[in-house]
Amino acid sequence: MSPNYQARRAKLRRALKKTDLEVDGLIISGLANVRYLTGFTGDASWLFLSSSSCVLLSDTRYETQLADECPGLDIEIRDSGRTINDLAAKVVVKARSKRVGFEADQTTVAQHGSLSEKITTATLVATCGLVERLREVKDQWELSQIRAAIEYAQRGIGVVRSSLRSDQTETEIRYLLEAAMRSFGATGPGFEPIVGVGPTAALPHAHAGMRRIAEHPVLLIDWGASTDSGYRSDLTRVFITGKPTKQMELVYKTVLAAQRAAIKAIRPGAKCADVDKIARSLIERAGFGKYFGHGLGHGFGLEIHESVRVSPISEREFEAGMVVTMEPGIYLPGKFGVRIEDDILVTGDGNEVLSNLEREFDEAVVPILA
Amino acid sequence: MSPNYQARRAKLRRALKKTDLEVDGLIISGLANVRYLTGFTGDASWLFLSSSSCVLLSDTRYETQLADECPGLDIEIRDSGRTINDLAAKVVVKARSKRVGFEADQTTVAQHGSLSEKITTATLVATCGLVERLREVKDQWELSQIRAAIEYAQRGIGVVRSSLRSDQTETEIRYLLEAAMRSFGATGPGFEPIVGVGPTAALPHAHAGMRRIAEHPVLLIDWGASTDSGYRSDLTRVFITGKPTKQMELVYKTVLAAQRAAIKAIRPGAKCADVDKIARSLIERAGFGKYFGHGLGHGFGLEIHESVRVSPISEREFEAGMVVTMEPGIYLPGKFGVRIEDDILVTGDGNEVLSNLEREFDEAVVPILA
Repeated sequence: MSPNYQARRAKLRRALKKTDLEVDGLIISGLANVRYLTGFTGDASWLFLSSSSCVLLSDTRYETQLADECPGLDIEIRDSGRTINDLAAKVVVKARSKRVGFEADQTTVAQHGSLSEKITTATLVATCGLVERLREVKDQWELSQIRAAIEYAQRGIGVVRSSLRSDQTETEIRYLLEAAMRSFGATGPGFEPIVGVGPTAALPHAHAGMRRIAEHPVLLIDWGASTDSGYRSDLTRVFITGKPTKQMELVYKTVLAAQRAAIKAIRPGAKCADVDKIARSLIERAGFGKYFGHGLGHGFGLEIHESVRVSPISEREFEAGMVVTMEPGIYLPGKFGVRIEDDILVTGDGNEVLSNLEREFDEAVVPILA
Repeated sequence: MSPNYQARRAKLRRALKKTDLEVDGLIISGLANVRYLTGFTGDASWLFLSSSSCVLLSDTRYETQLADECPGLDIEIRDSGRTINDLAAKVVVKARSKRVGFEADQTTVAQHGSLSEKITTATLVATCGLVERLREVKDQWELSQIRAAIEYAQRGIGVVRSSLRSDQTETEIRYLLEAAMRSFGATGPGFEPIVGVGPTAALPHAHAGMRRIAEHPVLLIDWGASTDSGYRSDLTRVFITGKPTKQMELVYKTVLAAQRAAIKAIRPGAKCADVDKIARSLIERAGFGKYFGHGLGHGFGLEIHESVRVSPISEREFEAGMVVTMEPGIYLPGKFGVRIEDDILVTGDGNEVLSNLEREFDEAVVPILA
């Protein structure tokens, strides 16, 4: 199984035709979008697409790499005396494009300004999320990569879980986890792992610091792996490394119940905001509403945060093939926090939880070595 | 020694006044810029600055972290039901701003669109590189961080150099290097290290793969460390792990001579393009001109690529306090590549090479263990 880049580009051309933008060319400047459509893993490169042409705009650093990674693809290479805007102007003229789309959510106002100056033979038209929309629904090859990324992450946490020691710091655990995931085949973490003990676990996006496990019974780890192909996983578990209080148990069980109820509701056609609400209401009813401030989940793949977002303000529905996190949390400032996060595939008639680590409260209680 | 964020913000206010933008407020959305001005290490947050106010716009995930990292700073927190644009509109009204600058090189066209819709009481004015310009010149605290990042990187490569084995793969070397840097105090690599053997070294931005050292006598490593405070280093060395050919020696010595000549010319007032030309001409005269396609160097600090760029199209001059890489290279496709990269501080009357690893050809020849 390997990715079919031509099929993806054909899909994009069809999606473009269905819009009322009436463009005859499209500049793709988002890095992950370029990778998705071509397999190119470098940076600072754009793709130009029209009905008859497809050209990758890059520079001399990537000339040989492009021949390896994108055999058969037309390329335009600039030297250090020209900018990528010069190349864009050149291919637009060559393709006789008169209305060229650009990615408004991947192009800065300043880049748009310079591009407008260079492209004098066509009108630039803002497009939004065209490729990101395609990337929401994963193909079979992508799913195999995400499954691998989840496997690496789960095996890695297994090593950490079985070697927890009271004197370990958050940072030591982070490094051990990264090394373990690599030993199983990951190229690295999918993002900077969050490892938080007690009050640090109450910071939803904490950096691993110097707190030791023995300081507090709650240990939160939010981590994922990355595959060689660039796909990621995103999981969170809380380990109770000492005697839990009643409050810890209540918070844990509330979060888990919220996650379970939300997952149950995921199916094609279900509204993202409704699923968010299921988890949020349950946490509110338990009296912890103001301690759950972030969205319930998000898509991921080549990037760790992708469309769709599962939040109160989402206007989208789930579709078969989407892969999202489900990660409710309750954070008690200065005390501790609990988040439980799994990776869910939307299937034809419901969903499949791709991750399969233990989730019950009793299973989260892990005796540590003194 | 610690960073003086208020002094940095005062500098920004003065820089803003010197422009002809006539704005009475500024929205900073670039993540590294926000960190530079406040010390905040999270993401998805903006800073609003006017002559009398300074407010960080963030969300509930960061509420506690902000209190820790930015004590005394005004903050506006959104919950998951509002966007950051809502917060921006609110603080603009509160500050009675009528003309608000935004960072045109940090704001996408789409973000600008949504922001314009929300901000109805003021005009949005594009600004470019205001904070990046301040960040070009490093203060004493930043220099101490960069020196530490260089120290971690140099110690790390020492471990790699002294343990080279013929059966090691590029990927194994990359992981060993990252672990070694961490053992000396780095929080991680400053960027994905490039480790390339032979033909892979001919790709200026290669990913470490599965080639083994024994396959070819040329081993190129481009690496750096990152400090806890977010500052980076950026170095490249080539090791000759077998019997070098005449061509390898010629290429190496040409690159080194180009780097030396360029460094010699760095002083306040020297033009970046002129310094680039010194190295480029020397490589051209040696007959390798078309094998050196990238710019000669770049600033770095909180990000691995920062302003200024040292390239043929740069219009800037060096200033005291800037820190830049000097990294000429020659890449022979399918054969091998050589790049030598050091980190240079522009001083009052010349420059100081902050990195001090051996650079001579003879020193690059490293016997490896079979």
